Amino acid sequence: MKHLREELWFNVPDRRGYINITSEVEALVRQSGVQQGLCLVNAMHITASVYINDDERGLIGDYDDWLEKLAPFNASGEVYRHNRTGEDNADAHMKRQIMGREVVVAITDSKLDFGPWEQIFYAEFDGRRRKRVLVKIIGE
Amino acid sequence: MKHLREELWFNVPDRRGYINITSEVEALVRQSGVQQGLCLVNAMHITASVYINDDERGLIGDYDDWLEKLAPFNASGEVYRHNRTGEDNADAHMKRQIMGREVVVAITDSKLDFGPWEQIFYAEFDGRRRKRVLVKIIGE
Amino acid sequence: MKHLREELWFNVPDRRGYINITSEVEALVRQSGVQQGLCLVNAMHITASVYINDDERGLIGDYDDWLEKLAPFNASGEVYRHNRTGEDNADAHMKRQIMGREVVVAITDSKLDFGPWEQIFYAEFDGRRRKRVLVKIIGE
Repeated sequence: MKHLREELWFNVPDRRGYINITSEVEALVRQSGVQQGLCLVNAMHITASVYINDDERGLIGDYDDWLEKLAPFNASGEVYRHNRTGEDNADAHMKRQIMGREVVVAITDSKLDFGPWEQIFYAEFDGRRRKRVLVKIIGE
Repeated sequence: MKHLREELWFNVPDRRGYINITSEVEALVRQSGVQQGLCLVNAMHITASVYINDDERGLIGDYDDWLEKLAPFNASGEVYRHNRTGEDNADAHMKRQIMGREVVVAITDSKLDFGPWEQIFYAEFDGRRRKRVLVKIIGE
Repeated sequence: MKHLREELWFNVPDRRGYINITSEVEALVRQSGVQQGLCLVNAMHITASVYINDDERGLIGDYDDWLEKLAPFNASGEVYRHNRTGEDNADAHMKRQIMGREVVVAITDSKLDFGPWEQIFYAEFDGRRRKRVLVKIIGE
């Protein structure tokens, strides 16, 4: 069995942001030498997501509006108990559950085995600091 | 390490539909010869989901109503920016995030290692065309 | 390839509850002898979730309120068709889709490869009976 472990680091300048990380993950698949296997990509922070969807600017804006509607930002401890701890990011913990922590992607013939429009995104919901994603590849 | 890769194809006649694909996945597990391992099942399209839940007709109707409430269909580009591209499926990209892209199921003693009511579904949110699911099995 | 399969059992006394299961999963990783691999942790029941987030009491209360807002409990068959079957747990099937069925965690150097605040939770949405989680570990 071959395996590879790597971290990708980000520092999103705003509270929220969406970054296409597909080419970085593809490069790690090549580096791993794995021909057949699985590639796990997960946020290592609990106010961020890794998800797969379209790299279309309008859609990303729609996601951002929609998440804000389902789990609005509110720094107050009267709205979110979590924010009584001094945090202001309770909404980010919720947004991340909608978009998910991780994706698992098949590796076939040394490549990410993707449908026509699948792209891997890092979604930041509480940015303005360095945060990271884990890539773990196993296979042969 | 053994591995198997197969696609399952669907053409849902309506915009939305929910198809139980458990027996197709089980057949692939048998075909793989894997006794202990992992089985990844993912939508290859970004307006569809693979999820695990109950095969009960009322529940499926409830899911459909609930998803429509959380992310209503609206073809207008004034509601969803994505639809300014000429698409009308922005809602489908959101519904898919709620229900998820993929499931990973354990294989134990050559079978899907399931609880009593777990069934694998393909959920279509933008049908009326051929779309597919990837099954990737690794193990020994 | 090494592999391990174990079940964790729970009996949550209330309808809903959130249990940190990280140390139980870590013990199974040690027991497996796997140094590099993947660890799948999934609810075996379709009205419960396994998810990764913070072990902070206020946040857990916020999740509970938020899930109840997105998918309110209502035993009536007029609100949820699923409840016409004699069940009263349709809301639990929806809450579970938001929080997810499973997590896949990397194993690196014989440990769960976690960011600073990642903790694995079992979330029960229809308790007061014995239910279980599957842990499946593969690697070498």
